[in-house]
Amino acid sequence: MSANSKPMRERMEAFILELQEEIITALENVDPNAPKFLRDRYERENNTGYGISGVFSVPVGEDGLAPAIDTVLEKGGVNISVVNGHLSQAAVQQMRAEHASLPPPPEGGLPFFAAGLSLVIHPRNPHAPTSHANWRYFEVMEPGDSENPKTLAWWFGGGSDLTPFYLYEEDAVHFHKTMKDASDPFGTQVYPAFKKWCDEYFYITHRKETRGIGGLFWDDFTDAPHKSLSESEKRPRSIEEIFAYVQALGRTFVPAYVPILAKRCKQPSTPRERRWQLIRRGRYAEFNLMIDRGTKFGLMAPHARIESILMSLPETARWEYMSDMGTDPESPEGKLMAVVKVPREWV
Amino acid sequence: MSANSKPMRERMEAFILELQEEIITALENVDPNAPKFLRDRYERENNTGYGISGVFSVPVGEDGLAPAIDTVLEKGGVNISVVNGHLSQAAVQQMRAEHASLPPPPEGGLPFFAAGLSLVIHPRNPHAPTSHANWRYFEVMEPGDSENPKTLAWWFGGGSDLTPFYLYEEDAVHFHKTMKDASDPFGTQVYPAFKKWCDEYFYITHRKETRGIGGLFWDDFTDAPHKSLSESEKRPRSIEEIFAYVQALGRTFVPAYVPILAKRCKQPSTPRERRWQLIRRGRYAEFNLMIDRGTKFGLMAPHARIESILMSLPETARWEYMSDMGTDPESPEGKLMAVVKVPREWV
Repeated sequence: MSANSKPMRERMEAFILELQEEIITALENVDPNAPKFLRDRYERENNTGYGISGVFSVPVGEDGLAPAIDTVLEKGGVNISVVNGHLSQAAVQQMRAEHASLPPPPEGGLPFFAAGLSLVIHPRNPHAPTSHANWRYFEVMEPGDSENPKTLAWWFGGGSDLTPFYLYEEDAVHFHKTMKDASDPFGTQVYPAFKKWCDEYFYITHRKETRGIGGLFWDDFTDAPHKSLSESEKRPRSIEEIFAYVQALGRTFVPAYVPILAKRCKQPSTPRERRWQLIRRGRYAEFNLMIDRGTKFGLMAPHARIESILMSLPETARWEYMSDMGTDPESPEGKLMAVVKVPREWV
Repeated sequence: MSANSKPMRERMEAFILELQEEIITALENVDPNAPKFLRDRYERENNTGYGISGVFSVPVGEDGLAPAIDTVLEKGGVNISVVNGHLSQAAVQQMRAEHASLPPPPEGGLPFFAAGLSLVIHPRNPHAPTSHANWRYFEVMEPGDSENPKTLAWWFGGGSDLTPFYLYEEDAVHFHKTMKDASDPFGTQVYPAFKKWCDEYFYITHRKETRGIGGLFWDDFTDAPHKSLSESEKRPRSIEEIFAYVQALGRTFVPAYVPILAKRCKQPSTPRERRWQLIRRGRYAEFNLMIDRGTKFGLMAPHARIESILMSLPETARWEYMSDMGTDPESPEGKLMAVVKVPREWV
């Protein structure tokens, strides 16, 4: 039996298991003296799947909130989850608005499968950007107890994005260029379409600013015509091509992000820069708690594992009333604000 | 012209202006060497009203994030806003679900008036509780340019609640008893009804816990029958009686909260207790950003003043993955968790 004859459910699960280790190992290698990521496997209730949280944290020291040892990362998570669940008729009906490939649901609802890797990395140094990525596969199956149920609908989603506190243009260019280079072989329309979507998705409505300097974001990626892509140009079209795209982009995370982390993590920084980092982390928390659909969906799901979902939050965030930081356009903080107020084309 | 012959709009505005000064002065008196609250008046666009934010903050020191001077409060706001606005037909239609006194709206929508005081006090000492309160009046008027338009519908809302980090039963009892004593002359059914509503409102759904140890909460308080109150028992029934209740409860904030603050603010504390305070402040931020209807409504409103709305957020919040703090029921942190998991009757 060749790999390709296995159901996509199994192939995606195998891919994210492998990718999780690859990413964690690359992050651990940046800081060999730091504690290793904690691999925390948990089983979901009623035999509905499992998750493996890969968590980085440092115990606080005896005499305060400062970490017991100095580390490159402050907090991080590289998590996978593999879920076999059931969607009610109403839930399927609601999902059809965004996922046209879903059939009208029968009264008893439909079984689903979801597998994804989700990561957030919060480095300690204010010159090193926070990063986030997620790749996921969703499938809705025929009802029944079959070992290998028929697929009724499927899609992939994913993306990766960067949230710097201080703008280093070369870092932004490197991050975007690495992803564009990985994306272009699948059709040159793909990078600009998903880059735009990323700027739109990571938008903090009430602040009128993006969370960071973007990256790629896509959802509802199937073999059907896609609202963000032209059918007359090259694009990943079959499930094989789309899975190849997801794998290529997933494997691009390490070369896109880790060199930036390695370069910035030892740069000298001031308490004022730390303060700005914490204020921006407040905005990060606002986005994740108020706006992110993934967080909302996750928390509403039955048997939601709160700790894994909210692991994306920074260890510390700060809110100042009418802060003066970032208001002077000539300041380093103001230079970041310019690019979160008006997204830029980096490549 | 006697005070009572003035429209309630003006009387409520005068009340909250007075109460704002009373509360700010009482808080300033607890810590005479601290910077004074900054009274920050702003005008709303297009002649639609104004606000006065009363803000407490301490500049950070030169060499880090520690405050330049030690103060009782870490962050606080005692804000009023007075708004003359316009509700679209659709907005009125939506509000009718919760406010039965609203008439079916005409095509052009309806003018409204809203006046309220909203406060959040975050003390520095982990043994001193955070407190929040809000009193507001809302009125929908006949369309037209009249100087003194006819009132079509009106209601009051409000409440005050306490969020300790460490449980001192005598503080919880004092807070609740002071409010019960102020409430009882208006009918003994009122305190238990609004205490229950408070426990239900300040509930962090995904954490399955309340934000703190509660207090009072009420909304849609008019002269019509109220879903939380029995018509056969004594209750504030006329607009005069309800306004008297709102004033009595507003004036109860200082005696309910300030003695607790004064008692706890000098108590010795450890870095571990500070850490727990910051973790609980993370939960506070989760409630305010994800669940609080007032925040959501405020941020969606046209010309929303973000800085005033999000001033409720703590200066610093902390999120740990699977924190061990609070898990041991015999620990001081665990004793707090017991009362946020199962609300208690304090008086």
